[in-house]
Amino acid sequence: MSISPLAPDSFPDMPPVAGLSLATAASGMKYQGRDDVLLMCATPGSHFAGLFTRSDTAAAPVQWSQNRLAEGVCQTSPAAILTNAGNANAFTGGKGHQATMATADALAKAGNIDKNAILLASTGVIGEPLDTDCLTAQIPHLLAHDTASWHDAAKAIMTTDTFAKGATTTCQLDGKMVTICGIAKGSGMIAPDMATMLGYVATDAAVSAEMLHHILSRTNAESFNAISVDSDTSTNDSVFAIATGIAGNDEITSETHADFDLLYQAIQLVMIDLAKQIVCDGEGAQKLITIDILGADNDSDAYKIGMSVANSPLVKTAVAGSDANWGRIVMAVGKAGMGIDQNAIGVRIGGFDVARDGQRVEDFDETPVAAHMQGRNIDIAVSVGAGSGTARVYTCDLTHGYISINADYRS
Amino acid sequence: MSISPLAPDSFPDMPPVAGLSLATAASGMKYQGRDDVLLMCATPGSHFAGLFTRSDTAAAPVQWSQNRLAEGVCQTSPAAILTNAGNANAFTGGKGHQATMATADALAKAGNIDKNAILLASTGVIGEPLDTDCLTAQIPHLLAHDTASWHDAAKAIMTTDTFAKGATTTCQLDGKMVTICGIAKGSGMIAPDMATMLGYVATDAAVSAEMLHHILSRTNAESFNAISVDSDTSTNDSVFAIATGIAGNDEITSETHADFDLLYQAIQLVMIDLAKQIVCDGEGAQKLITIDILGADNDSDAYKIGMSVANSPLVKTAVAGSDANWGRIVMAVGKAGMGIDQNAIGVRIGGFDVARDGQRVEDFDETPVAAHMQGRNIDIAVSVGAGSGTARVYTCDLTHGYISINADYRS
Repeated sequence: MSISPLAPDSFPDMPPVAGLSLATAASGMKYQGRDDVLLMCATPGSHFAGLFTRSDTAAAPVQWSQNRLAEGVCQTSPAAILTNAGNANAFTGGKGHQATMATADALAKAGNIDKNAILLASTGVIGEPLDTDCLTAQIPHLLAHDTASWHDAAKAIMTTDTFAKGATTTCQLDGKMVTICGIAKGSGMIAPDMATMLGYVATDAAVSAEMLHHILSRTNAESFNAISVDSDTSTNDSVFAIATGIAGNDEITSETHADFDLLYQAIQLVMIDLAKQIVCDGEGAQKLITIDILGADNDSDAYKIGMSVANSPLVKTAVAGSDANWGRIVMAVGKAGMGIDQNAIGVRIGGFDVARDGQRVEDFDETPVAAHMQGRNIDIAVSVGAGSGTARVYTCDLTHGYISINADYRS
Repeated sequence: MSISPLAPDSFPDMPPVAGLSLATAASGMKYQGRDDVLLMCATPGSHFAGLFTRSDTAAAPVQWSQNRLAEGVCQTSPAAILTNAGNANAFTGGKGHQATMATADALAKAGNIDKNAILLASTGVIGEPLDTDCLTAQIPHLLAHDTASWHDAAKAIMTTDTFAKGATTTCQLDGKMVTICGIAKGSGMIAPDMATMLGYVATDAAVSAEMLHHILSRTNAESFNAISVDSDTSTNDSVFAIATGIAGNDEITSETHADFDLLYQAIQLVMIDLAKQIVCDGEGAQKLITIDILGADNDSDAYKIGMSVANSPLVKTAVAGSDANWGRIVMAVGKAGMGIDQNAIGVRIGGFDVARDGQRVEDFDETPVAAHMQGRNIDIAVSVGAGSGTARVYTCDLTHGYISINADYRS
């Protein structure tokens, strides 16, 4: 698989997050010659938050992790997240739950960790029983070699990804320098509610579990839930946040805390960066499409219209063909069914007015728009009325590469 | 464009419908060397019914026809439907409405038809002003040469279609032989709520306008609204029914009429046949996929789950690759969000049990399933519980052909 033409030039230089160790190993479960297991261990007192797929067919590890976080135990125990790539342990019935329990048991015993403080994530083939022995056999190695880099970690969770995804930033909270690091995986089955993606954002900031969850939810809506590759939602989507508190800043325990906004913005930056990288690795993607919807009655309507455009195969194939086919954009706005007055619709592509007041602009010059369509980054803005609702969503074009990958690969 | 491998061997032998004349002409508006205008004229006293796209961006001719049928005038006047292919007259603002008025005016004058008894339909490029002169110039020819065949008519309304679509049947009502003939066009932008498709079903049966509309609505739900090629809904979808009453049977004026079911079933047969032909002409389609959902809480839930499977790019690409990837089917069932208990899900492919009670069947033998997947007709059945809700929907696979057609053609 060649690397996406939209990939960043290189993986960012990401520092360790104090209080969090990373370890990777090769289970041989599916992939040969590469690590496919990631263990993240956080210092006692770290806070965890998680968000999960809303699919009715959520995988066993998703259900396991949801139950652990619901019990809140990860606030106080030493806690770990074990992730494997290659087998999703989804739609595996009772065997799937046995596999999660056996895995957590083995890690709890070998690592002397409270079993209920262990979170699990899996990604890969659906419906094949997980070979737990393959996975647990790596636990001693993982516990003994816990100095992996973020780049190692990002590589270990890849499936159809063509490049490892990481993002990092820093901020000053309460006079202390705080680090935020994130990694993610995902390329196919990307849609609202996170699709087949796994995301991890870690910081050494001190922030309460409640506020960590709040920030994760808000930034998730602006990032992983604002992207779509193919409108398919996976059984295994999970996004985790870890805050070790080692930075020693005054703990952020409410939205009114002086440092809340700073931490929120730093995590937002990392989450949106990761989400855009996932779109840029969309299966077969040749172009990143940013869609802004303006003037809707409210943000929710704007989001639904944006996703209708982002998920339209006809819009996505037009972009693949570098065709400024605004008619298909209007079609996709219309099918969202938000009760838009079509005479109020305006469309801009690459900053150029294409349609206004429900029809093509007079003396439309397609030349600059066509030039924009030849590029890698396509900007579409649609105004749908005089309301204050807005949304920004991201998608990629739909190409022969998507068909080739998905007609041949069993995911 | 080569003909779809799923096309019928030939266009059916379709008799005229007494009281309805057909005429075709070549406007030169977009296509060269072929007819692209169809005029259907019905004898006075004929009844008409119509169903239209629910898109917020419905085209000018759709709005025109909706308004005419709302006024009910087509029950009593001589009535006609004028259709053009090549330009959709959609998202054309005030100009679009002027074009529909000018077209109807010209036909009303030349044909001595009440202007309000003229229905219009257009299909083709969105957002380009319609050249009304091209269209009206053909009206004298159309009125003078009204003996076109159904095959001529079906060919005149094609756009990206690779074959003309017709279906016919007969039934005995009240001792009278009644004919039902239908034609349709559509291949891309096919989704619930009819997408870019036009459909016409005509009969010489005597049936009230109210009952005709009722039968059209019910059979539409089982046919054109039960198909999906790419989940995109068009601005121009219209389905018309015409009943001339010339057969002389006792007019069907209620559901309790002795002949209601016979006429319903005959029209249903024609509508489902046409709908399946549209899927078989799905852009790039190599396989027809029939999806049955069983055991849902109600038919509406079953339909939503069926459409979630039918619209899943990952399911459709798996079928393209002849991959019995039931994991993707389960994923698509889950993302429908109908609150299914995943441990109750069973999947059959080609009549073979693949998964039962939420996991792959023991000792699963993929050989016969793989053989089924190599065929042209793929049958997927999913049971999702113990309820009585069922649905059957149709789609096609997603192939390189779809990308090629849509990345190059401006529809």
